[in-house]
Amino acid sequence: MTQSYNRLNREDAAVLLVDHQTGLLSLVRDIEPDRFRNNVLATAGLARYFGLPTILTTSFEDGPNGPLVSELKEMFPDAPYIARPGQINAWDNEDFVRAVKATGKKQLIIAGVVTEVCVAFPTLSALAEGFDVFVVTDASGTFNDITRNAAWSRMQAAGAQLMNWFAVAGELHRDWRNDIEGLGKLFAAHIPDYSNLMTSFAAQAASR
Amino acid sequence: MTQSYNRLNREDAAVLLVDHQTGLLSLVRDIEPDRFRNNVLATAGLARYFGLPTILTTSFEDGPNGPLVSELKEMFPDAPYIARPGQINAWDNEDFVRAVKATGKKQLIIAGVVTEVCVAFPTLSALAEGFDVFVVTDASGTFNDITRNAAWSRMQAAGAQLMNWFAVAGELHRDWRNDIEGLGKLFAAHIPDYSNLMTSFAAQAASR
Amino acid sequence: MTQSYNRLNREDAAVLLVDHQTGLLSLVRDIEPDRFRNNVLATAGLARYFGLPTILTTSFEDGPNGPLVSELKEMFPDAPYIARPGQINAWDNEDFVRAVKATGKKQLIIAGVVTEVCVAFPTLSALAEGFDVFVVTDASGTFNDITRNAAWSRMQAAGAQLMNWFAVAGELHRDWRNDIEGLGKLFAAHIPDYSNLMTSFAAQAASR
Amino acid sequence: MTQSYNRLNREDAAVLLVDHQTGLLSLVRDIEPDRFRNNVLATAGLARYFGLPTILTTSFEDGPNGPLVSELKEMFPDAPYIARPGQINAWDNEDFVRAVKATGKKQLIIAGVVTEVCVAFPTLSALAEGFDVFVVTDASGTFNDITRNAAWSRMQAAGAQLMNWFAVAGELHRDWRNDIEGLGKLFAAHIPDYSNLMTSFAAQAASR
Amino acid sequence: MTQSYNRLNREDAAVLLVDHQTGLLSLVRDIEPDRFRNNVLATAGLARYFGLPTILTTSFEDGPNGPLVSELKEMFPDAPYIARPGQINAWDNEDFVRAVKATGKKQLIIAGVVTEVCVAFPTLSALAEGFDVFVVTDASGTFNDITRNAAWSRMQAAGAQLMNWFAVAGELHRDWRNDIEGLGKLFAAHIPDYSNLMTSFAAQAASR
Amino acid sequence: MTQSYNRLNREDAAVLLVDHQTGLLSLVRDIEPDRFRNNVLATAGLARYFGLPTILTTSFEDGPNGPLVSELKEMFPDAPYIARPGQINAWDNEDFVRAVKATGKKQLIIAGVVTEVCVAFPTLSALAEGFDVFVVTDASGTFNDITRNAAWSRMQAAGAQLMNWFAVAGELHRDWRNDIEGLGKLFAAHIPDYSNLMTSFAAQAASR
Amino acid sequence: MTQSYNRLNREDAAVLLVDHQTGLLSLVRDIEPDRFRNNVLATAGLARYFGLPTILTTSFEDGPNGPLVSELKEMFPDAPYIARPGQINAWDNEDFVRAVKATGKKQLIIAGVVTEVCVAFPTLSALAEGFDVFVVTDASGTFNDITRNAAWSRMQAAGAQLMNWFAVAGELHRDWRNDIEGLGKLFAAHIPDYSNLMTSFAAQAASR
Amino acid sequence: MTQSYNRLNREDAAVLLVDHQTGLLSLVRDIEPDRFRNNVLATAGLARYFGLPTILTTSFEDGPNGPLVSELKEMFPDAPYIARPGQINAWDNEDFVRAVKATGKKQLIIAGVVTEVCVAFPTLSALAEGFDVFVVTDASGTFNDITRNAAWSRMQAAGAQLMNWFAVAGELHRDWRNDIEGLGKLFAAHIPDYSNLMTSFAAQAASR
Repeated sequence: MTQSYNRLNREDAAVLLVDHQTGLLSLVRDIEPDRFRNNVLATAGLARYFGLPTILTTSFEDGPNGPLVSELKEMFPDAPYIARPGQINAWDNEDFVRAVKATGKKQLIIAGVVTEVCVAFPTLSALAEGFDVFVVTDASGTFNDITRNAAWSRMQAAGAQLMNWFAVAGELHRDWRNDIEGLGKLFAAHIPDYSNLMTSFAAQAASR
Repeated sequence: MTQSYNRLNREDAAVLLVDHQTGLLSLVRDIEPDRFRNNVLATAGLARYFGLPTILTTSFEDGPNGPLVSELKEMFPDAPYIARPGQINAWDNEDFVRAVKATGKKQLIIAGVVTEVCVAFPTLSALAEGFDVFVVTDASGTFNDITRNAAWSRMQAAGAQLMNWFAVAGELHRDWRNDIEGLGKLFAAHIPDYSNLMTSFAAQAASR
Repeated sequence: MTQSYNRLNREDAAVLLVDHQTGLLSLVRDIEPDRFRNNVLATAGLARYFGLPTILTTSFEDGPNGPLVSELKEMFPDAPYIARPGQINAWDNEDFVRAVKATGKKQLIIAGVVTEVCVAFPTLSALAEGFDVFVVTDASGTFNDITRNAAWSRMQAAGAQLMNWFAVAGELHRDWRNDIEGLGKLFAAHIPDYSNLMTSFAAQAASR
Repeated sequence: MTQSYNRLNREDAAVLLVDHQTGLLSLVRDIEPDRFRNNVLATAGLARYFGLPTILTTSFEDGPNGPLVSELKEMFPDAPYIARPGQINAWDNEDFVRAVKATGKKQLIIAGVVTEVCVAFPTLSALAEGFDVFVVTDASGTFNDITRNAAWSRMQAAGAQLMNWFAVAGELHRDWRNDIEGLGKLFAAHIPDYSNLMTSFAAQAASR
Repeated sequence: MTQSYNRLNREDAAVLLVDHQTGLLSLVRDIEPDRFRNNVLATAGLARYFGLPTILTTSFEDGPNGPLVSELKEMFPDAPYIARPGQINAWDNEDFVRAVKATGKKQLIIAGVVTEVCVAFPTLSALAEGFDVFVVTDASGTFNDITRNAAWSRMQAAGAQLMNWFAVAGELHRDWRNDIEGLGKLFAAHIPDYSNLMTSFAAQAASR
Repeated sequence: MTQSYNRLNREDAAVLLVDHQTGLLSLVRDIEPDRFRNNVLATAGLARYFGLPTILTTSFEDGPNGPLVSELKEMFPDAPYIARPGQINAWDNEDFVRAVKATGKKQLIIAGVVTEVCVAFPTLSALAEGFDVFVVTDASGTFNDITRNAAWSRMQAAGAQLMNWFAVAGELHRDWRNDIEGLGKLFAAHIPDYSNLMTSFAAQAASR
Repeated sequence: MTQSYNRLNREDAAVLLVDHQTGLLSLVRDIEPDRFRNNVLATAGLARYFGLPTILTTSFEDGPNGPLVSELKEMFPDAPYIARPGQINAWDNEDFVRAVKATGKKQLIIAGVVTEVCVAFPTLSALAEGFDVFVVTDASGTFNDITRNAAWSRMQAAGAQLMNWFAVAGELHRDWRNDIEGLGKLFAAHIPDYSNLMTSFAAQAASR
Repeated sequence: MTQSYNRLNREDAAVLLVDHQTGLLSLVRDIEPDRFRNNVLATAGLARYFGLPTILTTSFEDGPNGPLVSELKEMFPDAPYIARPGQINAWDNEDFVRAVKATGKKQLIIAGVVTEVCVAFPTLSALAEGFDVFVVTDASGTFNDITRNAAWSRMQAAGAQLMNWFAVAGELHRDWRNDIEGLGKLFAAHIPDYSNLMTSFAAQAASR
């Protein structure tokens, strides 16, 4: 019995960024803040780099949850932006679902805060409607590893694929020759070790 | 192949709190005590907040296992309370099963001590009888992470859904607009970071 | 779709202790030695307490792998003891399989060193022959948590149930009333916290 | 060469609570939030229980740092409260030092957020002026264990004594007979394991 | 329902070593470097010891990713070596797939850097074409345990079997009597504890 | 400037076991229970093995703190046993100090529960009176590593020497030839790895 | 005996950044890369913000150690830059020492890679010449926590003060009123939690 | 008050390798085995590279403790080798002390198993006789981090300097120009990350 490989395709994918709000981020303690900020921005960066339709949504942004982190707003000035009036599961918001469906994409790449609610609920809803869902695990945060692992378990059992932003980027890009410099920049900006490799290499090349 | 989303519904759910006894709690070492006490009380708090039928049960409470923690008793003065005379699996106790069935609910939210016995055994029994079981992972404790992970693995393979209390609350509530203040109070009481966000917000609002 | 609960039964179960040898034990580093020795002896203790047919086997015990730990030998003087001449997977040894089948039991409780080889290989073989296999995770040891997790994953995917010795004992015993003192002694001997609870309780009772 | 034991005395001690503000608390990640809130309240609780002069201070509480956590304000309605207009080291604020000196105490028990700044700076200043300083390590929080360890090292090298709130309470109380019930209540309120011991004991006593 | 045991066979297996390059190795932080180098060399060592067809591949080895680690090159001077011009998923490179298929083997043992890309992508592709895939988890490295666990989850859900190099060797060897000395040397070279056991044993034997 | 080596001498040392009570032991969470029980018994074992005068003391043993663990009572039937009526610092109890001084020893080996109170307080008092104090760190337990580290820091700054039971035994014994078998038995009983080494060695020796 | 507080003064301090080179950074594994890059840039940022004389030095930058990370070069275009021809201890390089002395500063703030060599050696040398040395622990990296702790221990014993960049900034700034916005920007740029607090605050303020 | 820098000098230093025996190594669990073997061999490697007088000693090597690891024997065929007949503290063995003194060196670099006994005891003895002692922390192993930290604390308080092998090598070498290739080889052999840097660099250089 062979398994079909449900593979991310640049043409088929959309990105959903759910509730990366300045207040809610203080709840995230399963990934340390420097790394988490970097992972979220890297996910946003790949969405923009690959030109994927991206949808932003927030929950109660006028209250303690706080506004969307400003970098995300600035990176996607024209993206659908759904400030949900109360629905905890973004998929319960008709505007959000309409925006998702308007992209015409079947593969949904999702990240958010906190993992077991803002990511898991729409993931389970989208799977139930036949979408393929790819969870960006390292751009999604929660209270601790117990809550993360439970959330992963629930989503995977329902058919979601768990990935990290680096794998998402690699699967979408397919071949370095499609654009070496562009992907290299994305990686250098968000992976210090990769950046160091490139700098060392360039310095040695320049010294010839 | 789409997955149906087996989602907690306020109308369909009951809560089972199994063996949170003062003696047995000294066995719990996979979650540190301050956090664990908080998670258990938060789970009880949400049961009461959402008005879910709740069933309490204990094992040998007159011996070394000790009495039910007093807060739980006080929070549910009228709940069915089954002091099991000896059955290790609460589901082997007819009174317990009868109480569960008397709720008329199909979705069982369960937490207890220790995870691999007091939670896993009734979970597996209830699944076998066709109930939907949602395990509150962070209000269930055990000896260490090896025993926890094995228990999770066994329950998930049998069809249980693993959640934390925060996700349970969020899934039941559905929409903040159903009661902003009530849910906010529940969260503030059990999530220091959330409480801090609210206090900061209120202070700034008051300073206008 | 309900799940049948494949539950350990005292009448249906046998215990397989695989390669707990003094040399091989130095390879176990995913559980610290005091705890691991205790878990292994607790597993042996429950096998004897419940009167389960128990089979011992070793690999190359005359070489660097070393002899079976002496306590196990002493606890099961009449158990089938298969010193395998070379087979890495105990199930590849006909005497071992014959001994297993001679018990007439369908449920196999297995523990050993190292998890991914001495436990996983016979587990996968036995599952393939239609046995139910219950892995005692905390009486099985290996190099580190990466190797353990991979082994667990492989065994669970094949249908094994992952448990710890405490859950095995609880599931077999079913009801404390079957023998309060006996089970209590087993737990006190291997769970310091439980022993302390009992001592405190007894002291207070004696002081009346 | 004998060492004199610089021991906390109820008559000689004052408590300084520095910058436990709702915003700043989101920076604390070396102790998880449930435990940290508990430790801070326990420290405040012992200050009140022993009737120690207590001084509260905040930094920029009208800005992002946020107000003092409300429980502290409520617990010490009459305590000197110094909202510093800008000094990072509370000891650079004359009102604060004046309030400290007004207590007439030589032993300063200090806790705050974050450890390496709000605790360490006044600690070093107070030591330089000849005070004895006792740092409540577990009611002081910071970014991570690297920053905590460096702060501890610096303070200890300057002569501060590192303690936790439980040791502070024990050293001040000296003898349970001074007030069994009072100290017991303090411990029960902040140490779930101790609370459980007491509940088990009381239940057994009541069952005679 | 019995599970067939999909077991590694010496005659059916090939080894794929993907992108163990000197630059990329600086990205690996979920396994510490001494252990990781050892695991990779042990995997290569078993490939050679069992005479399994082995395929080497690299990604952009003339750039910052760096050359293949020299030991691997030296150990397999005649192995197919595919320096991919740009394909991120090695399975997208026709030469690589052709080389794999030319081995005539159905069981693929794969290891590489980084796990979620260089290992997971060809694993998923090979599974989709009907190959059996065995991932050498401890000779595959990535950024951290979050990215590793997500990658494992994705591969396992698709049918890959997760193993460590020691289990691979044991499953292939089947019976120590096939070659005690050879396997012993492999283990001694890569498992310090095993080496110590052998040295102790030999010394004592020599002292007779 | 040379440092004199303040070395444990069998003739100069006494052992103080403070508050290893069944209730208090549930507070110990910086060392897991199997290991901690073992360390405490090993410390007691070495006291008896070397024939060191040993003093037992408890705090409120008729209340929730519970009785002394029974093994300690049984191992030292004739030792001074001071059930303190209320003093938290054992050194504040005249009977205790009198018993210590009655030993005529200058070197005090101390262990207890919890580290920062029951160990640290008498340690600091004894140092102030000119005793040499050696803390058995691994037979002393507390809430977590933050509280442990603070306690260590305070005691070390006052001149205490931090050791583990194994080092205490080694320093007292001086030379294996004083009694190979006796020390070997002590180590085998409490160090599984050492026990395994001895069993392997004996088996090989016997096989000649 | 009072302790004088050796406190960082803006007028007395210089910053030494030692060997933050792209190759050497791959050796740093005691702090994860996203956080470490951030800490190094924050340290550089505070040096510039406070206008402290800053000295850069590298070791063999034309070889495998690689060039200085480019951000540091760009941030201090006019700083003394000593590319050491071979001295491992920067203080053995006369140009470096001359540059340090030319600053006329007595307080040296030092960070580098790796901690136990590139930081510890010049720290010990500078202390021996009478300088005050403040080690920025979290902008200095090494192989693992064992090597870090040993290095800290050695430096502290010689009189160095261990700090983190945040404490350095706080101690230099003294009073927020000296420049609220400037320090706020520095913190927001390098502490995601602080940045979030500020964004939340500003948003709420703007919404009035 | 300036601190003199007690710095390792090639001309003044000797190396003591204490009890790295195949049996005793199974006790070492604070450093994982691949890394520990590497650290021990690196320490031996630097002793030979710098031509430092090196002394080997063992404890009861004909019993369960096992022989010296063979690599050490082979690396120092002509070194003084003291098989102690029973002394636990090597410094209690006159031959050992005589061999140490015969080197004429004042600086002793020491490593061994286990840290708190075989390293700490001779360290304390040597310090008492006026030697300077440098402990190679990462080539010394023990049961766990609690025992390690206590041992470090005791040795440091007595004046020992804690280092790792890499720092020892760096401090002895002083200047890369003394022998670039030799030191590079030592580092490449024992630091995979450094080896990778060199391989990458060399490959790029060769490609010109």
